[in-house]
Amino acid sequence: MNIDEQLALISRGAEDFIGREELIEKLKQGKKLRIKLGMDPTAPDLHFGHTVVLNKLRQFQDLGHTVIFLVGDFTAQIGDPSGKNATRPPLSKEQVLENAKTYKNQVFKILDEEKTEIRFNSEWMDKMTAVDIVKLTAKYTVARILERDDFAKRYRENRPIAIHEFLYPLTQAYDSVALEADVELGGTDQKFNLLVGRDIQREYGLSPQTVITMPILEGLDGVAKMSKSLGNYIGIFEEPNEMFGKIMSISDELMWRWFLLLSFRQLSEIEELKKQAADGRNPRDIKFELADELISRFHSKEAAESAKQEFINRFAKGALPTDLQEVRLNISSAVAITNLLKDAGLVESTSEAIRMIKQGAVKMNGEKIASKDLQIDKGENIFQVGKRKVAKVILL
Amino acid sequence: MNIDEQLALISRGAEDFIGREELIEKLKQGKKLRIKLGMDPTAPDLHFGHTVVLNKLRQFQDLGHTVIFLVGDFTAQIGDPSGKNATRPPLSKEQVLENAKTYKNQVFKILDEEKTEIRFNSEWMDKMTAVDIVKLTAKYTVARILERDDFAKRYRENRPIAIHEFLYPLTQAYDSVALEADVELGGTDQKFNLLVGRDIQREYGLSPQTVITMPILEGLDGVAKMSKSLGNYIGIFEEPNEMFGKIMSISDELMWRWFLLLSFRQLSEIEELKKQAADGRNPRDIKFELADELISRFHSKEAAESAKQEFINRFAKGALPTDLQEVRLNISSAVAITNLLKDAGLVESTSEAIRMIKQGAVKMNGEKIASKDLQIDKGENIFQVGKRKVAKVILL
Repeated sequence: MNIDEQLALISRGAEDFIGREELIEKLKQGKKLRIKLGMDPTAPDLHFGHTVVLNKLRQFQDLGHTVIFLVGDFTAQIGDPSGKNATRPPLSKEQVLENAKTYKNQVFKILDEEKTEIRFNSEWMDKMTAVDIVKLTAKYTVARILERDDFAKRYRENRPIAIHEFLYPLTQAYDSVALEADVELGGTDQKFNLLVGRDIQREYGLSPQTVITMPILEGLDGVAKMSKSLGNYIGIFEEPNEMFGKIMSISDELMWRWFLLLSFRQLSEIEELKKQAADGRNPRDIKFELADELISRFHSKEAAESAKQEFINRFAKGALPTDLQEVRLNISSAVAITNLLKDAGLVESTSEAIRMIKQGAVKMNGEKIASKDLQIDKGENIFQVGKRKVAKVILL
Repeated sequence: MNIDEQLALISRGAEDFIGREELIEKLKQGKKLRIKLGMDPTAPDLHFGHTVVLNKLRQFQDLGHTVIFLVGDFTAQIGDPSGKNATRPPLSKEQVLENAKTYKNQVFKILDEEKTEIRFNSEWMDKMTAVDIVKLTAKYTVARILERDDFAKRYRENRPIAIHEFLYPLTQAYDSVALEADVELGGTDQKFNLLVGRDIQREYGLSPQTVITMPILEGLDGVAKMSKSLGNYIGIFEEPNEMFGKIMSISDELMWRWFLLLSFRQLSEIEELKKQAADGRNPRDIKFELADELISRFHSKEAAESAKQEFINRFAKGALPTDLQEVRLNISSAVAITNLLKDAGLVESTSEAIRMIKQGAVKMNGEKIASKDLQIDKGENIFQVGKRKVAKVILL
């Protein structure tokens, strides 16, 4: 690949790309770049949203560069020293190592282990003396750090900011000095911190790192950020049928977004797919290809194919899934459809039931339900909500 | 002394006295208090202005408590890490030790060496890890530290504050934790920092220190702060005759201030002297007693008496000092008295000459000069400005 092609790949899907000049210079010199990503030492179960930035790392690896996962064990071991944030208890060295292992198991589904370094910032932070900290903090001003959105807001609103919170962006920046990072990746919410890294590297006589931020991936609903708490996510180890069904449930618009951010296909191939869609190819079939790629990545080609077959059997052909769930509910008299759907676990709430019915997404025995006021009496019926939720409900 | 008497002595001359309750509690328990004073590790030549706070320490020692001189060698060794303050170069360990020695030689003119500890904050600061610093800085907020007058002003005026500057009040406060200080003394300009000490001690589970700030001593002029650069000072090792003359030159009003802040006489004795003055005793004779006390302290009783005799011989009896200075000036025609005084080095400027003449403080051959417009022709005359400046001026 020539430099322009490399840059096109590197900037694919990126929100910010700061320090392009320094990057071009290094690419011209044929330098093997060091790409830094800070990892959350609490090691969450990764979902597709997390993989956006991992995919970017993978692209760098494909170009021959070295990826460095930085485990922030230094700060993790401190926890929240002000004691105000109960969700950030201190982690022991053992826990951090265990979490790093869990994390590795997940990320190597995407990354090339050979081209990946796992580092811990305690390597240098534990050696730092009070003098070193003073010297580091002398390199940045209060006013500049108060410009960070969240700090600015809290300061304006007279909500307390403890002084140690000012130290974290600086130690994170110092990590880039210690690692001699050429590029640092992060979510858009990390932009400020990554830019501090550039400044601090300069202060320590290094070439400032290029900063690339990746957008936050929208979840299944196509609107909100993918997150576990919103329930609109796909975990990377979710069962293949579940994964397939969820991918098939996204909108066509979101599908193109996911192609950009989640697929390893070249942009030219994606353009080709778009052209096919414009020429009348069924978007469902294009979504099949996305699902196939992602399930192959996290499970296997075979799992992907079998999930596709199951999906086709279940929905595309109109057949009921082989593992139809049965729900038994005791009732004294006829119940409202909305309550039934909720009690059967097919929706989260009656208001969701109402919404789904309005959207025409609820079927009873294959027939769309038109009214939210429908009453269902004792007996056995198959209810389907959206494309993927189905249950046989037996009212007793 | 009962507690009330002790408190009267402790609060004598103090500007701020914060944490009186905690102090009373400890005095009641008969606790041997630990009194902290931070010393400037650049070790200046001390003048009377510096001794105000040393005298307060001495009062604590007289009450049986322990004085701790804290040498801030930790920060001294860093200097100004932002490189913006050229007047604060880093000091080597050796320099700091040398300065501490110089300082000790001076302060033991006032303090009881037996009841004095000299400590260096590198003892604990050098052992502090980055984690310890994070924990320390978690205990204070940005907003509170930005309330410090100088920070508030600089922030408001968009002048840069480097983040390490926030660390210094906290490390100074931590010194009080490490030393388990019961009382910290300082100038009024240190009030904020000393109060941070209270907060941080509380955070580390200690009883907060009592904060006592002492006023800034006015210099010989009775108006400006005593300082070397203003020239209105008396160095503690100044030659006895010089010291005596300077003390005798201060106003009666300033004399009472100095009695309060510099003398070790009891307040009741000072009240008695004031009564004598009101009853018509010559203030000059009371000033003799102040001069005698201070010169005895820094030199010896004999030196004080001999300086007094010299002073009396020189001025009080109207006799000329034995070491009369001769100045020869070449003139072409008669010169104005104001220029003559300036050229002879008896005043700094012609405007000072005018002022001194107006005050009736200039004599020619023992006669007061009434007019600033007096012209002096060739010849030999003795000029005297104030009580202490005399010269034989020969106009050629």
